[in-house]
Amino acid sequence: MKVKPSLPSGTRDFLPQEVAKRKYIFDTIKKVLEKYGFQEIETPVLENLSTLTGKYGEEGDQLLFKVLNSGDFLKDVDPTILTAKDSKGITPKIAERGLRYDLTVPLARYVVQHQNDLVFPFKRYHVAPVWRADRPQKGRYREFYQFDADVIGSNSLLNEIELTQIYLEVFQMLKIDVLVSYSSRKFLEGLADYCFAKNEFTQFVTILDKNDKISQSEIIDQLNKINSNKSGDRYKELVNLFLEKLKVGNVEALQWLNSVFLEIGSEVGSQGISEIKTIGEYFSQTDNHELNEQLQFYFYLARGLNYYSGIIWEVKYLSKEGNEINYLGSLGGGGRYANLTEMFGGRDMSGVGISFGVERIYDIMKELDLFPKNITNSTRLLFVHFSEANRDFCLPYLQKLRAANIACELYPDKAKMEKQMKYANAKDIPFVAIVGDEEMNQNLFMLKNMQTGEQRKVSFDELKTVLTSI
Amino acid sequence: MKVKPSLPSGTRDFLPQEVAKRKYIFDTIKKVLEKYGFQEIETPVLENLSTLTGKYGEEGDQLLFKVLNSGDFLKDVDPTILTAKDSKGITPKIAERGLRYDLTVPLARYVVQHQNDLVFPFKRYHVAPVWRADRPQKGRYREFYQFDADVIGSNSLLNEIELTQIYLEVFQMLKIDVLVSYSSRKFLEGLADYCFAKNEFTQFVTILDKNDKISQSEIIDQLNKINSNKSGDRYKELVNLFLEKLKVGNVEALQWLNSVFLEIGSEVGSQGISEIKTIGEYFSQTDNHELNEQLQFYFYLARGLNYYSGIIWEVKYLSKEGNEINYLGSLGGGGRYANLTEMFGGRDMSGVGISFGVERIYDIMKELDLFPKNITNSTRLLFVHFSEANRDFCLPYLQKLRAANIACELYPDKAKMEKQMKYANAKDIPFVAIVGDEEMNQNLFMLKNMQTGEQRKVSFDELKTVLTSI
Repeated sequence: MKVKPSLPSGTRDFLPQEVAKRKYIFDTIKKVLEKYGFQEIETPVLENLSTLTGKYGEEGDQLLFKVLNSGDFLKDVDPTILTAKDSKGITPKIAERGLRYDLTVPLARYVVQHQNDLVFPFKRYHVAPVWRADRPQKGRYREFYQFDADVIGSNSLLNEIELTQIYLEVFQMLKIDVLVSYSSRKFLEGLADYCFAKNEFTQFVTILDKNDKISQSEIIDQLNKINSNKSGDRYKELVNLFLEKLKVGNVEALQWLNSVFLEIGSEVGSQGISEIKTIGEYFSQTDNHELNEQLQFYFYLARGLNYYSGIIWEVKYLSKEGNEINYLGSLGGGGRYANLTEMFGGRDMSGVGISFGVERIYDIMKELDLFPKNITNSTRLLFVHFSEANRDFCLPYLQKLRAANIACELYPDKAKMEKQMKYANAKDIPFVAIVGDEEMNQNLFMLKNMQTGEQRKVSFDELKTVLTSI
Repeated sequence: MKVKPSLPSGTRDFLPQEVAKRKYIFDTIKKVLEKYGFQEIETPVLENLSTLTGKYGEEGDQLLFKVLNSGDFLKDVDPTILTAKDSKGITPKIAERGLRYDLTVPLARYVVQHQNDLVFPFKRYHVAPVWRADRPQKGRYREFYQFDADVIGSNSLLNEIELTQIYLEVFQMLKIDVLVSYSSRKFLEGLADYCFAKNEFTQFVTILDKNDKISQSEIIDQLNKINSNKSGDRYKELVNLFLEKLKVGNVEALQWLNSVFLEIGSEVGSQGISEIKTIGEYFSQTDNHELNEQLQFYFYLARGLNYYSGIIWEVKYLSKEGNEINYLGSLGGGGRYANLTEMFGGRDMSGVGISFGVERIYDIMKELDLFPKNITNSTRLLFVHFSEANRDFCLPYLQKLRAANIACELYPDKAKMEKQMKYANAKDIPFVAIVGDEEMNQNLFMLKNMQTGEQRKVSFDELKTVLTSI
């Protein structure tokens, strides 16, 4: 039976060039993380649904991919559920396992399950595919990669400083201009309190979070509608005063905000300012001014506040003109959270983590042509030949180059030169060594630089020198 | 709701040290493959069941993990199937996708689907997990990694030579003593013909394949029972004559076998000998005698003959005494196959490939302690401190080391020295720099070598020199 080859919607194959480019992104992030002491872990794709269900809200439960039990899975199912065609009711009876939905719940399970084998603070990274039965659309897949780095079991702000630095360093290495903005849930709590919206915190930050989509005056209008206290006007007034103080200096502006929070008795708001100040001060002392410019305390940043308890981050792409571009969404985000492990009965452990939007990073780098030129060619040289005798002549030289760790190939079949050159071009191989009877008799190689088109006859030693010198 | 953390049976978490060790194996194999011009591809975990079903026999179909359709999946199911509790009948109605079962069927689909974007001969490798709803047992998992390398679209024997070489080189780099045995389906066809069992080929090779489990005389007994032609006696006679000829030399023995096949008119058997000879001769010319000793033409090797059409390989672990150890099973295998892509309507393409039993390779290397010592420590130095002031003193030095690409950490929290040293030990960090008030005031670091226990006060420059010199 012949089947037309196809893939499930929302999934992808990757061609060798794509794998090489994705690997470049992953490896760059890994290299930076390892320099900071993070270690890679792995968890299985299959998790028990008892682990996953109820962790992502009702919508999340719907979006979990569930795996059918093996064998005669209907045997013990209550016939009334079957005749009622109750898809939702039957699911837990016929599917005990599912595909992981993110890397956070598996991390929580992992930390509790292996707490005696892990060393704390536990600094781990994890890069792996996750699955969501979402409607696929441009740039959104059902099977896609997440890349997370977290520190579990340390309350020190040093972790926040290092994670900020990791963000800055990674995007600098990838040559993507970004704005790493940060704020603090504690600051936002102080802000809500100041704006008479302490009891309407969620509503308050949800409006602030619309900053990307609606204008400043609309935000103020909406804040004013929270309650009868004119939260919007109060907010506007504070922002304007803060902008005034910023002209004097960052430190002065934050000190002023702190005094405002202390005046209204918001201890938590003052703590938030202190955390923001610590991070800001650390980076203002850095010699790398370029990095410093990409970092910004962001008044309106209000993401993930269902779970974040301290510092929060968001990374956005900056266009050449320096304006934020939001259409591509965020390239990363993170924050500090309390009680990661509580859902699995673990002892109270705080964590702080960041994630890299690797699928979007790939899209941007592809669009902007930011990948280094040499990452898709691994083979350095192709031997091109005209006969079996020519081909066999090349064999020992092929091995000599490989013994010197130079990646090279010999076209395996008898084929026209054109076909062999096409192979070299398609694989982006920078050099070919052409061997006909003349070269074979002279013990020489016609070495061609595929980029410049330049070619000359060389000895094997010369050939090797050319290949090792680049 | 608290859930006791657990994993589905047959799946595993990997601790950081395990990930590092597995990565070492994967990276070693990848490095060799890339030197030979192989490129990595990726395919999704989820495949359409129409792609997978019917490719692995009836048993394989049972072992496929099937993923439940999303939404109201029972809606359109015939009620009579439901009331009949027909698990097998309902499966195709409620599950359209499954988890990949191996990397070969996805490769066939991939090659046909992307034939216009690929360059042939297509040399790809793929390392990824696969799933089988098998009964889990020691060393056998439901989610486990496969590592395959294949060349599609070239009939040249050069591919067989290179794949043999890759096997030898990989296991040499991993420092695992192996026997790479090879044979040929064509030779086995000639052999069956010679032994009057041409029409009972499958039965004939199935008996030969028991060589690991039963004695030579039992094999001969069983062969004698194939038909009334005494295939076993004829086989025994041939083996004895071959062993005699081997005393003269490998080439002579193969030439003699060839003449035997030509005498009975077995063209295919003669072709098989010629292929085996080409490979043997190539490696007998190599300077690396150690490699050559690990390679052997194996009379009894008869694996995968449902799909292999030419050369076949098997890799087995050799104990220190040089005897084969079979209890750990094979560490790899492969062969040439015809018509990989036919099942997806692709044009006729031959392929040849090998796979690495990476799970077993890991088990053996762990058992024999073959992993290099330094692969599990990525951090080179931990700064250990006694106060917040001591800690902050370290910050700029931490950054200077990282700027020089030296992986290092600063213990983030205030903690007893013992706890910080325990952290360094658990993470296998080779050096710590202890900073108390005295060191801080002198601008020096107490540098301790964690392996020798040796410690001395050094300047930052000295510290950096020590870390970069290793």
